[in-house]
Amino acid sequence: MESSDPSPAAVSKTQEISVPPVEGVAGGGTSYGWVDGGLQGSHLGSSVIDPTKVHSADLLHVWSMPSTANVSQQEAPRPLEHVNLLAARNERESFQIALRPKVSWASSGIAGPVQIQCTDLCSSSGGRLVVGQSITLRHVVPILGVPDALVPIDPSSPQINLLPGETTAVWVSLNVPCGQEPGLYEGEICITAVRTDSDSKADSLPKSERYQLYKELKTCLDITESRDHSSSEEMILRLSSTSTTLRRMLVLPAFQDCHENNGLGDMMDEDVMNNVAVRVKLSLTVWDFTLPLTPSLPAVFGISETVIEDRFCLEHGTKGWYDALDHHFRWLLQYRISPFFCRWGDSMRILAYTCPWPADHPKANEYYSDPRLAAYAVPYAPILSCTDAAKNSLRREVEILKTEAHWSKAYFYLWDEPLNMEQYEVIRNISNELRTYTPDVRILTTYYAGPSGSELAPSTFEAFTKVPNVLRPHTQIFCTSEWVLGTREDLVKDIIAELRPDLGEEWWTYVCMGPSDPQPNWHLGMRGTQHRAVMWRAWKEGGTGFLYWGTNCYEKAMIPSAEICFRRGLPPGDGVLFYPGEVFSSSKEPVASLRLERILSGMQDIEYLNLYSSKYGREEALALLEKTGAYLGPDRYAHDHGPVDVMRGEVYRTCRS
Amino acid sequence: MESSDPSPAAVSKTQEISVPPVEGVAGGGTSYGWVDGGLQGSHLGSSVIDPTKVHSADLLHVWSMPSTANVSQQEAPRPLEHVNLLAARNERESFQIALRPKVSWASSGIAGPVQIQCTDLCSSSGGRLVVGQSITLRHVVPILGVPDALVPIDPSSPQINLLPGETTAVWVSLNVPCGQEPGLYEGEICITAVRTDSDSKADSLPKSERYQLYKELKTCLDITESRDHSSSEEMILRLSSTSTTLRRMLVLPAFQDCHENNGLGDMMDEDVMNNVAVRVKLSLTVWDFTLPLTPSLPAVFGISETVIEDRFCLEHGTKGWYDALDHHFRWLLQYRISPFFCRWGDSMRILAYTCPWPADHPKANEYYSDPRLAAYAVPYAPILSCTDAAKNSLRREVEILKTEAHWSKAYFYLWDEPLNMEQYEVIRNISNELRTYTPDVRILTTYYAGPSGSELAPSTFEAFTKVPNVLRPHTQIFCTSEWVLGTREDLVKDIIAELRPDLGEEWWTYVCMGPSDPQPNWHLGMRGTQHRAVMWRAWKEGGTGFLYWGTNCYEKAMIPSAEICFRRGLPPGDGVLFYPGEVFSSSKEPVASLRLERILSGMQDIEYLNLYSSKYGREEALALLEKTGAYLGPDRYAHDHGPVDVMRGEVYRTCRS
Repeated sequence: MESSDPSPAAVSKTQEISVPPVEGVAGGGTSYGWVDGGLQGSHLGSSVIDPTKVHSADLLHVWSMPSTANVSQQEAPRPLEHVNLLAARNERESFQIALRPKVSWASSGIAGPVQIQCTDLCSSSGGRLVVGQSITLRHVVPILGVPDALVPIDPSSPQINLLPGETTAVWVSLNVPCGQEPGLYEGEICITAVRTDSDSKADSLPKSERYQLYKELKTCLDITESRDHSSSEEMILRLSSTSTTLRRMLVLPAFQDCHENNGLGDMMDEDVMNNVAVRVKLSLTVWDFTLPLTPSLPAVFGISETVIEDRFCLEHGTKGWYDALDHHFRWLLQYRISPFFCRWGDSMRILAYTCPWPADHPKANEYYSDPRLAAYAVPYAPILSCTDAAKNSLRREVEILKTEAHWSKAYFYLWDEPLNMEQYEVIRNISNELRTYTPDVRILTTYYAGPSGSELAPSTFEAFTKVPNVLRPHTQIFCTSEWVLGTREDLVKDIIAELRPDLGEEWWTYVCMGPSDPQPNWHLGMRGTQHRAVMWRAWKEGGTGFLYWGTNCYEKAMIPSAEICFRRGLPPGDGVLFYPGEVFSSSKEPVASLRLERILSGMQDIEYLNLYSSKYGREEALALLEKTGAYLGPDRYAHDHGPVDVMRGEVYRTCRS
Repeated sequence: MESSDPSPAAVSKTQEISVPPVEGVAGGGTSYGWVDGGLQGSHLGSSVIDPTKVHSADLLHVWSMPSTANVSQQEAPRPLEHVNLLAARNERESFQIALRPKVSWASSGIAGPVQIQCTDLCSSSGGRLVVGQSITLRHVVPILGVPDALVPIDPSSPQINLLPGETTAVWVSLNVPCGQEPGLYEGEICITAVRTDSDSKADSLPKSERYQLYKELKTCLDITESRDHSSSEEMILRLSSTSTTLRRMLVLPAFQDCHENNGLGDMMDEDVMNNVAVRVKLSLTVWDFTLPLTPSLPAVFGISETVIEDRFCLEHGTKGWYDALDHHFRWLLQYRISPFFCRWGDSMRILAYTCPWPADHPKANEYYSDPRLAAYAVPYAPILSCTDAAKNSLRREVEILKTEAHWSKAYFYLWDEPLNMEQYEVIRNISNELRTYTPDVRILTTYYAGPSGSELAPSTFEAFTKVPNVLRPHTQIFCTSEWVLGTREDLVKDIIAELRPDLGEEWWTYVCMGPSDPQPNWHLGMRGTQHRAVMWRAWKEGGTGFLYWGTNCYEKAMIPSAEICFRRGLPPGDGVLFYPGEVFSSSKEPVASLRLERILSGMQDIEYLNLYSSKYGREEALALLEKTGAYLGPDRYAHDHGPVDVMRGEVYRTCRS
């Protein structure tokens, strides 16, 4: 009745009670119905709602949200607007459709099911983006309460259930093939409230009724097939008895709709659907830029082979094991990611390899030559067991690969974050060995500090920047954590100053546990732009590659459909960018996270920025990133989607032919 | 790879990088599988799981939680323990069963359905608490992300769906009838993972197949019922043709299981169920105390008639309207609540009445005499339209009621929180009028401040305590907001000091928007003990009654199943203690909130404390409340359930005969 904010004022007997009742809210009573738009709809009546007879707009809110929005269950409805998107060829552009029930129309537990149907997108010149191929729908499912998993919606039965008082989102992705003709593509998505299966009783036949039918049919059969056709009277009797039984069967409730509409009215009528659906208009401008097949920035991401072996109960080296790894490799490639499989040994010793097959296997060439693969890890097998056989096999491996055109994409990743001179020594020894096989070997080393045991205190920034001095020529790819920079972009020049590009030295970056909020990273619960900004940051800072330690590093389980638990001690989502499909359905296809889609978007943004750089220079591209408000620094970047579209639109406007 | 907490350390080039990697977590790789109890279960295999063949304990976590726990979707599993409860006769005691999938066994969208079956609870002497009557199961459904709505689980199909990575709770209530024999009652709840309906295909008959059946039956009928029995040959032919068609029907897939098991094997086999179920053992001690039918503390709660009229599209005064009010009245009575219907007029003028029928209607006596009703509001109809007819009708009403035994329960509630002398004047005038009808009229007035326009500044605590001086003899029930006290219980004596019990004056309290956290109230998102403590507070402070303004005061809507929106400007849940059943299912039964159940528990606790007082004195009962840690003050009370059970157990131990 009174306002409770700020807190009660009776701290002393004579002190003022300071807060008057909120006007129009006091008592809650006089304010009844004062909110505009209190749900009107007495035409729906007070009985159970038949969604085929009511416009779906009366039953649910439908509105669109950008791909960088985290649409929570409490997301408030917005007006429905025409969706306008821009995409290059070989680009995926996504947005979301948010749905929230206004009323409940199902008979139990849920508010009601909705059907989501998308038309093909067509251009006036006959171009077409086909649903199911170029257009996909996925249901946004919360993980730890945060929208994250994108569970494919079965195209043959594109329905999801809405819950009372909850907003649900559908993730719509448009994949523009390389050969797609530029132009304006238009189509629409129809959202229709439908009946639940259990509500349309006609579809199911209760066991009791089915058994009754069965018995009656048997009875009839007993009567008709008797071989004893003694008399006409007897036969007349039998025919008449059969008729009676048949008539009784035909009036069973199960057949009611067969009478009514000749059996053709089971599906919701196409016309009804057209009349009651909420339509989301969709326009996609495909422009005459084709994202390069090979990502400009190699982004190498780890897949734990151990996690795959455990969860899918696969023995190392079996056909099932090869199939599973192959499946994961192909699936991740579509995200402009260059996968490597990995297994950790003692300390931070790591076996990293992109292709599970040896270099002389036909699959090896298929993997390494794939233009979508920007970099690949060559397995340094002796890291796990340092036998002569392992060494010989490695030598053969290198001897085959170094003659190939794709050898320039090769790297060795031997040790994750070496911390002391002893670990550095291991890298040096391996490097010396590898360079006897070929001098142009590339070794990648991740680090976030200098080594202990050298003359510099390991935890100083100076020791960190001097790592190239200690590891030269035993590392070519110096891969440092963004965490070290914090918000100090200016420190980048100190890192780069220590490198020798003339010797082929490169600077790459990585994120993992750190940096944390508000800097860009891929933890669950961060903003969508924060996820996407990881790649903006990498591009702006000028690194020439990026590493992420794990995409499937959830907790151990021995059942494909086992619940996903994030590893304790890691921020939620860290090291997990997709989920096993089996957790959500009977599909074996991995389920992408929102975060993985935003990584792809960030990778695509890099190509836009590189296109702009190629026309107007890198300085202008940096200026574009800043002036649109997309990204100014690790703690200053767009919070909402607007600047992202402005930036991409500006590249389109200035770079289209 | 490194720890990100605290924040990045690279604030200066030479500053220390202070945080070493977390042991065993660095890299995320070496720590793989280090959590004990990583889900083992390779015996489940890697294919789709058949829940009838696997123990449900391998598929889901099951554990119990007390009624004061808010079991969130992220609630972590605990060990399953035997549930031990204590209840008096005429008491409801509740607890929760939390469920969380370990794996997914359904084919799409959900982790899988579970069946929840409770046995009757039986005592060794033959006593029985029957499922469906004395034992109810409800599904805890989140509202604004907070567990709140208790949606009944259909006893004929007691299933709920579990979602991947989400904890779900079932609310189990044991209602002990007045006549129940004391003793130890035992039983169990079986939780069984089951197949989804769509997975057990035999239950459904596809439309196409059904229509085929229908056509074949028609064909047979055409053949058999022809009246043209010309020849025996003809009839033999017809019988034979019918047989052929019948045989074709009998081998349809729909009838497959009818052949196999004679139609009896449709349900999950009882034995299978017994073998694979998770069993929650349940013991209830019913003791020889019977909660008084009439609550010791009258708790009067408002029901908005306007909200009912709008949502259920009912015209005032029609049969449907009376039925709806009657339904709400009866339903709320079970919560030891004395309902009043209300409608707000200008300013904070209020029409409050407990019975929609006039005093001379048989229903009026039924309502007012109900022993569960502790107090009732007599409608002061002229508050809305001050006609002679209204006045005459009121006089007749009072003249009838004042002769009845239940008249001592009657009160008038005329104005919600009068704020100035003008509004006080209205109350005085009505009081003068009412006292001409009968001198022993009781008027209830709510307030949280003194009136403006008197000699004292209205917002001082002094003006607030002096209200009885201003309203005497025009108010008997001085009903003040707990918000005014804040955490200062000691101020209670200043309020009471101003009252004249010799004139029948009473002090009641209320909560509404305030007080806010950490004080007890019924807002969504507060702790369970915080909800329950409202009544502990009322009892400890010594008020003789309690008022709550609204139980169904959500936003306006004109459709029974419309989404529930809390009114803007009010804390979530304020004024809403139950929901329309239609929002959650086709049931018209209101859906209680967790908070309403906790109010009931608090009302029951009061009877325990009064029993203890009656034996050992109020001081000892106050000491019990304190020493068990249940309630020490408005900002010091139990956070967890333990002290609640200790307090109740102590009353049982010391007061049983």
